[in-house]
Amino acid sequence: MHAYRSHNCAALRASDVGQTVRLSGWVHKKRDHGGVLFIDLRDHFGLTQIVANPSSPAFPLLDRLRLESVVTVTGEVVARGEGAVNPNLATGEVEVRAGEVIVQSAAAELPMPVGIDAEYPEEIRLKYRYLDLRRERLHANIMLRSGVIASLRQRMIGQGFTEFQTPILTASSPEGARDFLVPSRLHPGKFYALPQAPQMFKQLLMVAGFDRYFQIAPCFRDEDARADRSPGEFYQLDFEMSFVTQDDVFAAIEPVLAGVFEEFAGFGGRTPWAVTKGAFPRIPYAESMLRYGNDKPDLRNPLVIQDVSEHFRGSGFGLFAKLVDQGLAVRAIPAPGTAEKSRKFFDDMNEWARSEGHAGLGYVTRKAGEFGGPIAKNHGEAGMLALYETLGLGPDDGCFFAAGKASAAAKLAGQARTRVGEQLGLIEQNTYKLCWIVDFPMFEADEETGKVDFSHNPFSMPQGELEALETMNPLDILAYQYDIVCNGVELSSGAIRNHKPEIMYKAFEVAGYTRAQVDENFSGMINAFKFGAPPHGGSAPGVDRIVMLLADEPNIREVVLFPMNQRAEDLMMNAPGTVSIKQLRELHIRTVD
Amino acid sequence: MHAYRSHNCAALRASDVGQTVRLSGWVHKKRDHGGVLFIDLRDHFGLTQIVANPSSPAFPLLDRLRLESVVTVTGEVVARGEGAVNPNLATGEVEVRAGEVIVQSAAAELPMPVGIDAEYPEEIRLKYRYLDLRRERLHANIMLRSGVIASLRQRMIGQGFTEFQTPILTASSPEGARDFLVPSRLHPGKFYALPQAPQMFKQLLMVAGFDRYFQIAPCFRDEDARADRSPGEFYQLDFEMSFVTQDDVFAAIEPVLAGVFEEFAGFGGRTPWAVTKGAFPRIPYAESMLRYGNDKPDLRNPLVIQDVSEHFRGSGFGLFAKLVDQGLAVRAIPAPGTAEKSRKFFDDMNEWARSEGHAGLGYVTRKAGEFGGPIAKNHGEAGMLALYETLGLGPDDGCFFAAGKASAAAKLAGQARTRVGEQLGLIEQNTYKLCWIVDFPMFEADEETGKVDFSHNPFSMPQGELEALETMNPLDILAYQYDIVCNGVELSSGAIRNHKPEIMYKAFEVAGYTRAQVDENFSGMINAFKFGAPPHGGSAPGVDRIVMLLADEPNIREVVLFPMNQRAEDLMMNAPGTVSIKQLRELHIRTVD
Repeated sequence: MHAYRSHNCAALRASDVGQTVRLSGWVHKKRDHGGVLFIDLRDHFGLTQIVANPSSPAFPLLDRLRLESVVTVTGEVVARGEGAVNPNLATGEVEVRAGEVIVQSAAAELPMPVGIDAEYPEEIRLKYRYLDLRRERLHANIMLRSGVIASLRQRMIGQGFTEFQTPILTASSPEGARDFLVPSRLHPGKFYALPQAPQMFKQLLMVAGFDRYFQIAPCFRDEDARADRSPGEFYQLDFEMSFVTQDDVFAAIEPVLAGVFEEFAGFGGRTPWAVTKGAFPRIPYAESMLRYGNDKPDLRNPLVIQDVSEHFRGSGFGLFAKLVDQGLAVRAIPAPGTAEKSRKFFDDMNEWARSEGHAGLGYVTRKAGEFGGPIAKNHGEAGMLALYETLGLGPDDGCFFAAGKASAAAKLAGQARTRVGEQLGLIEQNTYKLCWIVDFPMFEADEETGKVDFSHNPFSMPQGELEALETMNPLDILAYQYDIVCNGVELSSGAIRNHKPEIMYKAFEVAGYTRAQVDENFSGMINAFKFGAPPHGGSAPGVDRIVMLLADEPNIREVVLFPMNQRAEDLMMNAPGTVSIKQLRELHIRTVD
Repeated sequence: MHAYRSHNCAALRASDVGQTVRLSGWVHKKRDHGGVLFIDLRDHFGLTQIVANPSSPAFPLLDRLRLESVVTVTGEVVARGEGAVNPNLATGEVEVRAGEVIVQSAAAELPMPVGIDAEYPEEIRLKYRYLDLRRERLHANIMLRSGVIASLRQRMIGQGFTEFQTPILTASSPEGARDFLVPSRLHPGKFYALPQAPQMFKQLLMVAGFDRYFQIAPCFRDEDARADRSPGEFYQLDFEMSFVTQDDVFAAIEPVLAGVFEEFAGFGGRTPWAVTKGAFPRIPYAESMLRYGNDKPDLRNPLVIQDVSEHFRGSGFGLFAKLVDQGLAVRAIPAPGTAEKSRKFFDDMNEWARSEGHAGLGYVTRKAGEFGGPIAKNHGEAGMLALYETLGLGPDDGCFFAAGKASAAAKLAGQARTRVGEQLGLIEQNTYKLCWIVDFPMFEADEETGKVDFSHNPFSMPQGELEALETMNPLDILAYQYDIVCNGVELSSGAIRNHKPEIMYKAFEVAGYTRAQVDENFSGMINAFKFGAPPHGGSAPGVDRIVMLLADEPNIREVVLFPMNQRAEDLMMNAPGTVSIKQLRELHIRTVD
C-alpha cells in the first residue's frame, strides 16, 4: 500500500465498504460521542470521517492531537448507521475505522481557526495565510481563480491566439502610473522598471509578424491600494491581433469572456447565474454618459436616465428654467412604483446627494396620478404630464432630477440611478450583464482653459484617420477605443491602435505636442512602425476582476493567493524588508531618510 | 469583403482558382521577370505569390515599395504555369493577380535583412528585435517555445496539477544567488526582492492544503549571463506535490517531459528524434560520478568509465602504482575502434587534457591485438589482457586513463569521455536521452578543512530521516534529492522536502548550525511547518533549456522573445535607463558613484 494514501479524502463510497484503505490529511474537526472519537480528516479534495473506539490503539494518539495536525490513517471502510449518513458529504455514507495512525506533523496551538469560515482579523489572516488558505471559502476562491485562468488560456488558444512571455525587467515608461524600479548592478545609476502592462511589447509582437498574441500577464503599478486593486501586482488577459477591425476584436473575445462566465456561473454550488447571450450590447460613450451617468453602466439596473432640459425651458419651476437658459442640463432618474414611499424616502435621497457634494437632488412624487412636491407644483400639471409621457412613467411613479453642468448632472444622475435602483430592489439578481462602451472621444477640452488634450489613450486610431484630424473639430473626433463592462465593473479597455506614424504625429499636434516631443517620448514605438507595421488592436480584461465577479467577492485579497495588505506589505514573508549594505553597494544606491 | 483579408497567406490552394481574394502581409521578396513583378507576400502563417503586370495599376505602387512594407492586395487567384509550381510551398500551386493594392505601412530602409536567415551582428538583431523576429528561424523558435509551454500546461493539468500564481514582489532570501531588489515607496529604506524561484511559496501551498501545484514561473537572478542563462529572468516548470514519495514525483513528471519531447521532436520539419521510452533510467549520484565523470551524463555517448585502480596496484607502470598506493584513483575511458588512429590522435588528447589544467591523459593503443604506448609496455601483456577483459575491450580498441584524486580523476575522465565520444563519432544522433540522478549525498566534507556542510539543498529530506542523522556517518547519508538530465543538460533539480522541524534542526546541527541560526534565517518556513505540514516534494525543470534542446539551439537568446544582451541590457527598450530625481526621491534612495 502507498506510504501515504490509497484514496484521497473525497473518494470513498458505500461500494468501498470492507476495504482496508489509507488516507492522509489534516485533522479538521474532532468530536467525542460517548467516548468514541470522530475525526473529520480533510485534504484538498474533501472530508472523510474517521472513527476511533476507546479500545483502539489509535485512540490515545488521535485523542491528544491538536486540530490541523497531519496524520496518515490506515483502517477499514465501514458503512455508517442509518441515522448517521451525511447526504451533504460525498463520503457521507461511510467512515474509516482507525487502525494504524502515523502522525506526519503534529500541529502547535493555532493562531487562528481553520475549520470555520468565521471572520477573523485581516492582519492575522495575512500573516498566517497558509492557514487562512485552508479555510473552505478562500480555498475554493483560489481554485476558482486557477480554473478561470486555465479556461481563459484554453479559450484563447481555441480562438487562434498564442501565448507569449514578455519581459518583466524592462524600461521605465514615460507616462502612466508610477513604476516599480529595479536598480542595475552592471550599470551604475541606471534602473529597470517592472511593466505596468506589456502594451509596447504586444504591439511590437504584431510589428514582428505574430498574428494573435495573448498572455495572462503580471502587471505592476506602484499605486495605493483599492478594494479592487492590490498594491503591487495584478494580472490581465492581455491580447492583441493583427489585420483586424474593431468588429474582429469583439468577435474574438466575446465568446471567451461569455464562455468563462458561463462555465463558472454556478460557482460554490449556487444556481448558475445568467450570462449575456450572443454579441454584447454596444453602447456609444456619449449615450452611456447620458443614459447611465457614467461609462461603466450596470445593466442589471433597469433605470434609464433621460435629459429633460427642454421640458424646463421657460418652466414655472424657475430654478431649472434658469439653469437651462444658462446652458446647463436637467436629467431625470425614474423612481417607478414609489406611490407608497414616504416623503422621507425622497428627502433622504436629496440629503444623500448633498452629502456626496452635489447641490441636491430634486424630485416629484406621484400617487394615483396626483403629482406632489415643489417642482411639480411650480412646473404645472400640463408640463408634468408631458414630461411623464416622455419619460414613460405612470400614475404611481416618482422621479428624481439632477441639474447642473452636463458632466456634473450626468455624474449625479448616475449615482442616483444606482441608489434608487438599489433602494427600490430593482437590480436584477444572479446575472452577469456584459456590454461594450464604444466611440470614446479622441480629444477633450480642459474645462478651465479650453485646451485640447487626449481624452484617454493617445495611441488609439482616430475614426476617420488623418482626414478627420485635418478637417474635423477635434472635440467631435471619436476613437476606435472600447471598454468591456460587466455589472458596472470595467473589465478592460482596448483599442484599434494607431499604427501610422504620420497620423500619430498629427494627433499629437492637435493635442499641442511638437514632432520633437513625440519623438523624444515615443521614439521606440514610432520607429518600429516605420519598418512595416500591420493594422492591429486588442484589449486586456482584468483577471482579478473577473474572478471577483464570479466569486462575488468585493475585495481582491479574497481571490489572490498571497496578497499584500493595504500598506503594500506581505506580512507572511515580511516584505518589503531591510537588505544588507553589501547588496546596496553592489547596486550603487544608498537609502535616504 | 473583410477590410484586410479574406484568407491568410498560407491558405490558398488550386481549388481557390478563379476566386477574388484579399490578402494582407509583408513584402517578403520582390523579383522582376521580364517586366512582370513577383512578390512573396508573407504573414504569420505563410507566403503567397502576388503577380503584377506592367499594365496593372498596382504595378507602379508595388514596384516602388521597399521590402517589409505592409500591403493589402485584392485580386484573382490564378493557377501557376506547370514549371512555376512550387511544391515546397503550401500555396505553391497558385498566385494572386494584384488588382487593388493598399499600402498599410511603407517600410523605411531596413537596418538588417529579414527575408534571409543569414548571420547578422547580435547588437543589431537585439536592437531591432521586432525585425529579427520576422525571420523564419527565430519566428519558428518562438512559436516552438509557446507550443512547448502550452503543452506542458495541458499535460500538468492532465496529471491533476493546478496552476497558481505566486508573488513576484516578495522578500529578499537569505541565501542562494543575488537578488534583484525593488525599493519600497511606502516603507523608506526597505526593499522587495524578485523571487529567485517560488520555492518557499510552493512549499507553503502544500502546507496550505493544495495538493498538486505547478506554475510556468518567472524566476529572477542577478547573475552574469551564460550561453544557457539569460541575465535577469528565466522560466521554470515549477511543481510540488503533497503526500508523495520520490517514486510518485517521478511517475507524475516523466510522462509530461517525455510527452513534450515526443510532441516536438520533429521540430522544423526534421525527422522526429527518438525519446527515452517508459520510466527514465535512475542513476545514483555515486555511480554517475564514476561511470560518466559528472552528475549530468550524456547518455547518447555509449562510453562508460571504469575505475581500474586495483589493476595498477603494484604495476610495472610505476606512476599509476604509486598513485594507487597513495589512495588515488585511476579511471579508464575506452576508445573503441581506434586501431587505425595515428599516434597524434592519442597525443593530442593528452595535450588537450593538459590545456584544460589536468596533469595529462595516459593511453594505451591496440591494433590487431597488439598493445602500444608506454603504459602498456610497463604494465605488461598479462596485466593488459586482464585489464582489457575487465573493460570489455577488443583487439582494435584503445583506452585512455585519468588518474588523481577521485574527484579530479572523475572530472577529467568525464571530459575525456565526451571528447573521445565526439572525436570517434560515437554520440548517438537525433535522440533525447533522459535520466534521473538520484541519491545525492546529504553532506560533504570540505577538502581542506574536513568541515561537514550540506552538499546541495539543506531542505531535502535525508534518507533514514532522524535516525540516520543521529546514527550514521554524515558523509554516508543520502538525500531524497534528484536531478533530471537530458543529453548532458541538467533540466531540473528537485527533492522530497524535509517537512519536520525536528529533523531540520538536527540536519543543520550536523552541518554546524545552531537552532538560533536556523530560526533566524528560516523561521518563516519552519514556523509554517509547526501548524501541520504534509510530506511533500517536487522539482522545477527549466523551460528555456527544454526549448533549447528541442530547437537544437545552443544560445538561450535564440529561444526567448525579447532577451537582454550579455551586459543585461535590453537594446530595443533601452533598459536599464536613467530615471528622474523625483522617482528616486519617492523611493527614498539616491544613486552612488
